[in-house]
Amino acid sequence: VVILNEYLEEMAEVVVGECDAYVDKYIGDAIMAFWNAPIEQPDHALRACRAAWRCQIRLGEIQAHLASLGLDAGDEGLVMRVGVNTGPAVVGLMGSSRKLNYTVMGDTVNTASRLEGANKPYGSRIMIAESTRLAAGPAVKTRVLDLLKVKGKAEPTKVYELIGYEGLGAPLYDEAYVAQYHHEAFGHYQKGNFGEAQRVFTACLQKRPKDTVSQLYLHRCEEFIKHPPESWDGVYVMKTK
Amino acid sequence: VVILNEYLEEMAEVVVGECDAYVDKYIGDAIMAFWNAPIEQPDHALRACRAAWRCQIRLGEIQAHLASLGLDAGDEGLVMRVGVNTGPAVVGLMGSSRKLNYTVMGDTVNTASRLEGANKPYGSRIMIAESTRLAAGPAVKTRVLDLLKVKGKAEPTKVYELIGYEGLGAPLYDEAYVAQYHHEAFGHYQKGNFGEAQRVFTACLQKRPKDTVSQLYLHRCEEFIKHPPESWDGVYVMKTK
Repeated sequence: VVILNEYLEEMAEVVVGECDAYVDKYIGDAIMAFWNAPIEQPDHALRACRAAWRCQIRLGEIQAHLASLGLDAGDEGLVMRVGVNTGPAVVGLMGSSRKLNYTVMGDTVNTASRLEGANKPYGSRIMIAESTRLAAGPAVKTRVLDLLKVKGKAEPTKVYELIGYEGLGAPLYDEAYVAQYHHEAFGHYQKGNFGEAQRVFTACLQKRPKDTVSQLYLHRCEEFIKHPPESWDGVYVMKTK
Repeated sequence: VVILNEYLEEMAEVVVGECDAYVDKYIGDAIMAFWNAPIEQPDHALRACRAAWRCQIRLGEIQAHLASLGLDAGDEGLVMRVGVNTGPAVVGLMGSSRKLNYTVMGDTVNTASRLEGANKPYGSRIMIAESTRLAAGPAVKTRVLDLLKVKGKAEPTKVYELIGYEGLGAPLYDEAYVAQYHHEAFGHYQKGNFGEAQRVFTACLQKRPKDTVSQLYLHRCEEFIKHPPESWDGVYVMKTK
């Protein structure tokens, strides 16, 4: 609990202190935060992206500090996954007279939570919805991840990996790689040209052997070549939360 | 939000007011509560079962009231699912200096949350772990539901449906039905005698056509007769949360 509290302290400092979020609640080791209420914040989407990115940087610093003390954080290191979504939600006091909380509810919130969990198969750390991508503006660097139907939703959401933030360190992948390799491969995949997609995702991995997203897609392409889908709309349906 | 708050108000009145729980938090429309902290409550398991049972009764009253006003609650009516687990947990103030909560954490809590969700396929409303069943004593009426390996746990949990509480209304199923029909059928199933189990679960459904648990098991027996399992230890592995 001491370690968890120190982690939450550090992350709350970034999310609230630097990026002016409202922390809704903690659920285990997860932080649920929102923007644009109770006070309007016209740049709410940008702030949310900044908070997600800064948390990852801060986590890297904490890990480096732990390593300098000779403490091991396991094979993967410290991992924090973030889901960001932008849209309308119900905000207000919720609960009973025995316990009232200022909280946010609705479909937008549920999808954000699903995106957090959806990072896992992609190996990504920050997944943002198209709504956030559009609202956040050019300071946020992304690459497209998928057209994803999350559990409990009828419509797919176009999702992106947040890979950089202007002025805050180096991006995870440079623009040339994203445009010429990743987006090209993803384009073939979306059109159902799995052979072409396989070829370009293989090239991606030659360039960036640790690109977990390309690894995932290469695997999917192999499966779709072996067992071609009966109909193809490019939508991936998530079966789990 | 008004309707949700009224619902939470009623349920908190039962859980906290009648049964002395500590409400940890609300997550959407869910209430997370615990007993035996900060003050010791030797009958914590019994109180938790009582709270679960009383909430269902209160919900029935609310539904009857809504119906008397001509309001429709849908085909299934108002549905509330409860998971109860008993065991050690970490309790304390958690969070950051920006937001501190008195909360409970650990494996025991995670399993309780899984049991809540696990009700769905069984059509049950209250699922309690064996630990709770043993600690709660004879006032709590149950029937065995399954030997369940919930997601994220290596060991299976024996789980029960809470079907009654001494002095608080009629049980969902009488003792004779549970002992002579349900438990016999489940016993055959556990031993891997799926043909015998199928026969007795069919008898269960002749007696109680709406017994959703027997419906589920009949379906499982049919599947296991068609596709016999390679090895059988009676454990059902849940793939979802």
